[in-house]
Amino acid sequence: MTPVRAATVERYDVETDVLIVGFGCAGAAAAYEAASAGADVLVMERAGGPGGSSALSGGELYLGGGTPVQHACGFEDSAAEMFGYLAAALGPHADEEKLRLYCDGSAAHFQWFVDCGLTFEPTLWDAPTWMPTTKDGLMWLGENAWPYNEIARPAPRGHRCATDSFGGWLVMEKLVAAAQGAGADVHADTLATALVVDDSGRVVGVSARRHGQELTYRARRGVVLTTGGFADNEEMLADHAPSLIGHGKVSDGLDDGSGIRMAAAIGAATRRMGVVELALTALPPMATRGMLVNGHGQRFINEDVYPGLFSVAAVLTQPAPYWVIIDEEGYESVPEAERWGVVPRFVAETLAELETELGMPQGALESTVGTYNTHAARGQDPYFHKDPRWLRPLTGPFAAIDPRAGFHQGGRPSAGAGTGAAGFTLGGLHTTVDGAVLDVSGEPVRGLFAAGRASSGIHGEGYISGTSLGDGTFFGRRAGVAAAGGA
Amino acid sequence: MTPVRAATVERYDVETDVLIVGFGCAGAAAAYEAASAGADVLVMERAGGPGGSSALSGGELYLGGGTPVQHACGFEDSAAEMFGYLAAALGPHADEEKLRLYCDGSAAHFQWFVDCGLTFEPTLWDAPTWMPTTKDGLMWLGENAWPYNEIARPAPRGHRCATDSFGGWLVMEKLVAAAQGAGADVHADTLATALVVDDSGRVVGVSARRHGQELTYRARRGVVLTTGGFADNEEMLADHAPSLIGHGKVSDGLDDGSGIRMAAAIGAATRRMGVVELALTALPPMATRGMLVNGHGQRFINEDVYPGLFSVAAVLTQPAPYWVIIDEEGYESVPEAERWGVVPRFVAETLAELETELGMPQGALESTVGTYNTHAARGQDPYFHKDPRWLRPLTGPFAAIDPRAGFHQGGRPSAGAGTGAAGFTLGGLHTTVDGAVLDVSGEPVRGLFAAGRASSGIHGEGYISGTSLGDGTFFGRRAGVAAAGGA
Repeated sequence: MTPVRAATVERYDVETDVLIVGFGCAGAAAAYEAASAGADVLVMERAGGPGGSSALSGGELYLGGGTPVQHACGFEDSAAEMFGYLAAALGPHADEEKLRLYCDGSAAHFQWFVDCGLTFEPTLWDAPTWMPTTKDGLMWLGENAWPYNEIARPAPRGHRCATDSFGGWLVMEKLVAAAQGAGADVHADTLATALVVDDSGRVVGVSARRHGQELTYRARRGVVLTTGGFADNEEMLADHAPSLIGHGKVSDGLDDGSGIRMAAAIGAATRRMGVVELALTALPPMATRGMLVNGHGQRFINEDVYPGLFSVAAVLTQPAPYWVIIDEEGYESVPEAERWGVVPRFVAETLAELETELGMPQGALESTVGTYNTHAARGQDPYFHKDPRWLRPLTGPFAAIDPRAGFHQGGRPSAGAGTGAAGFTLGGLHTTVDGAVLDVSGEPVRGLFAAGRASSGIHGEGYISGTSLGDGTFFGRRAGVAAAGGA
Repeated sequence: MTPVRAATVERYDVETDVLIVGFGCAGAAAAYEAASAGADVLVMERAGGPGGSSALSGGELYLGGGTPVQHACGFEDSAAEMFGYLAAALGPHADEEKLRLYCDGSAAHFQWFVDCGLTFEPTLWDAPTWMPTTKDGLMWLGENAWPYNEIARPAPRGHRCATDSFGGWLVMEKLVAAAQGAGADVHADTLATALVVDDSGRVVGVSARRHGQELTYRARRGVVLTTGGFADNEEMLADHAPSLIGHGKVSDGLDDGSGIRMAAAIGAATRRMGVVELALTALPPMATRGMLVNGHGQRFINEDVYPGLFSVAAVLTQPAPYWVIIDEEGYESVPEAERWGVVPRFVAETLAELETELGMPQGALESTVGTYNTHAARGQDPYFHKDPRWLRPLTGPFAAIDPRAGFHQGGRPSAGAGTGAAGFTLGGLHTTVDGAVLDVSGEPVRGLFAAGRASSGIHGEGYISGTSLGDGTFFGRRAGVAAAGGA
């Protein structure tokens, strides 16, 4: 990672105006805009082809402020309401400056995706889930759950391009085609190893390894780091985000933080390196119809929030193990296709039996479910304000479902045998709203830009699906424009 | 913070072998050892005199493995038992390599304090508290609380030099005298502004401001950064440890992270920048005799743990507000001197009245206290295993005490009006066990060392009193030795 002094470079093997490192969603968006602005653009990708972790994702795009899909589904929305929700749900400590721009530009950003060739069905999936089983173009991502429904007028903002499963590959197929159509070149199988810096401190290129050869790339206008997060770097996790250690990783296996480290090696600042997203399967249709409890049998959140929020609350704040407690009527009411093959781990006629089987203190579940039922009978949840449509006294027989069962958010079997949670990192390089990387004194590092999970984006300590592809492309585009301008 | 190229320095105003930046406990320990090893030593301190945040602290020293004070009080201890406790209580993710050395060297480190002139009364304060009201030389710091009492054989390890209140000033008085006695010089009112680095990447000095003058200091053997954490730098908190924003700060007001930033500006790595210690007053004698509940009236921890652990658990994982619930008998049994003038905020004959006054859901406290009482009547706490000596069914009248009331750990009125917690940062520069600062590739930055809260020490995500003065001095000594050796 030791930076290369430009004065020591005898010749550059490759020259371009804008050099983009990493061809996930942020790299594609930056490449598209830089090329569209007339710059020579080269995208360097360590894997054999573009896509990265973006292509393996669910493909949700968190967009709003009044998109055609929202209108078609009968929802009014505004940038202000969108900001209100995200500031709370991505918080505390969301980046308000970036978030304001992101919300104000969201409807136009939706149109950009359409212009890139993505299509969206004008229909809503109206049930709690990680992933609809249909091609519906819109889904709720917790906007209608307490306390968010009191903070901002709820509107669904989870936009899905027309696939009936994980759509990240399709998003990337279109964005890569758009970037290449605009003129961006690609060097695959090319691993960036260090930044090249001139004596004034300006980044002027990248050294890289390609097919066993060391090559030096010159970037006449700017280098854009879109190398992703560091979920796959155990040493960086130990140093910065140990809460992810031992859990599964939602990534393509190459998110090793190399862009973050290359920049930090020349004094670039990082931000929020400890923040992670974690997802328990905890089948939302079951958790919502029943209850989610910690190892003491206590509830701790309304189960109808965005499931990433209940997952993070569980794993980072509650004593393990966690359980979804549900009754027979609730379980049977979950459509077969939404059960993901998950069956109860424990079943008992009474709560006293169930709490014994789960190793909880005597009376733990009886007390929690008793209190829940008393209030649910009146359509109330005075503790966590779950939507009344999910409130119903639970009656025996009861079941306990392991919230680690099933498949995690990334669509692959959960790797985290110990906890069954999987996640990724949200911290990264400190950037301006135009993607300029800042040094530890708060000054831009000239010639260096970053976007996507290599940077710290709109997020505070919370996460909502669709905000990675969302802020990666939104701020990737801005970084591409800025780099092409030679800022 | 922009580093100064040594080639541009025309002349050095001051030269020394080892230059230490910051005269708190780590700086004093480093200065003592470096001077004792025969090096010319200069300590640069931005304030008007030595002491820093160390001098304002309680003065506890976390030491064990069989000290004379432990023996005199009738406790056997070993480095292995001490390691077992700290690995759990400072965890998860304590630094096992540093911690192993710290525990193995702890009894000898106690003797070093004695050699520096500190005295310790051979008596034990045997009650839950933040701060004994006597000169007792030993106190428990949670070693006898579950689950730690099952992980390692409990022994009290909170060593206190002979004062009957906050002892940090006395610790610093002795350490500063020892460092100066060994030959270390001091430049007070001198603010380091940047590191001086030669073209090979070696740190060879520091630029500084003193009485309005810019001065350049040359360090022939090494620079040791002992500048403290960054609790007083709101921008760094926003970037790295936002959970401390809005809370009080336990510091001297000068913990602005300048050493961390100066080193990061030349590519030094940081570690665990998001980890903080937070302390609620939550008078331990009251919390232990009653119960600590969250805003939903739920217990979440055994109240007899080290009070920093229940404070962090509350503020970082539980819905506010928090309350100590106690009955009249429990309150009256707390000695007057240990009440710190705190009186109940709400008093009620029944739990139903109290929960209404506190704005909790109907039945919340009745359910929690009912369950607690059922088990307490049998001397059990199956949820959190509080020591049976604190278990007793609570009977009306009841009181709710604001755990923010009183004085916080630093001995000054709580500044955090919103939450009444106060704390400091635990993350910092990534160092070896000998204090060498590592760069982002994991290689030592030649000529640069760090210790104390400017570095990431033995801590994972937990904190125990006495481990700041403890690891600051222990690893400060090692850094002083290494810097004097010209490593």
